[in-house]
Amino acid sequence: MSKQLPLAAMDACCAPLARDPLTAEQAVELSQLFKAMADPVRLRLLSLIASHAGGEACVCDLTDAFELTGPTISHHLKVLRASGLITGERRGTWVYYRVHPEVLARLSAVLVPAEPGVVTT
Amino acid sequence: MSKQLPLAAMDACCAPLARDPLTAEQAVELSQLFKAMADPVRLRLLSLIASHAGGEACVCDLTDAFELTGPTISHHLKVLRASGLITGERRGTWVYYRVHPEVLARLSAVLVPAEPGVVTT
Repeated sequence: MSKQLPLAAMDACCAPLARDPLTAEQAVELSQLFKAMADPVRLRLLSLIASHAGGEACVCDLTDAFELTGPTISHHLKVLRASGLITGERRGTWVYYRVHPEVLARLSAVLVPAEPGVVTT
Repeated sequence: MSKQLPLAAMDACCAPLARDPLTAEQAVELSQLFKAMADPVRLRLLSLIASHAGGEACVCDLTDAFELTGPTISHHLKVLRASGLITGERRGTWVYYRVHPEVLARLSAVLVPAEPGVVTT
């Protein structure tokens, strides 16, 4: 199976950005993950894969949700794979995709605000 | 004080994307927030503001961290304000910035994986 876990990026993501200022290197690594998510089609693909039964989706499960060509879907999946957010494994005819839960979890952790629930007015 | 809370985007962010597929509208709104964070300078600015004493930073607190011109910093702050991630309030000579903790909290919530801690191999 393809393993593209961006370990450096994961290290960069551990501490909430509201606790300590990100270093320049951490910011570069994190920005690449956010860039991969800065597109509505890629976000929907990520969500479709992550929420699919068994946590895995075939490209055949994904294309019907969009009015886009196969090559366009493939391009967006390639960007998500290159970022390390998802992995893809070919089994027979199809490629099956999974989200890296560790990467999502660490991105989620980095965005936790300093004081959740505090409303600035 | 400036209030730029993107209420529509916040509604879109409530449920983890790994639980239910995002709608096209939710994905568009979320992608705009991630696009604002898809730049290392903006991520560092966001982190500097969020982690600053009192949760507030003057533009005078931010420029020393970068080898960038004032107008470049101002451009990135403008993008962060337009996205709704931060607010800015002029008091006397300076503009003071704060992060919207609600927006960070909801982005954090949307990225929570379906099964935290589960490692796909």
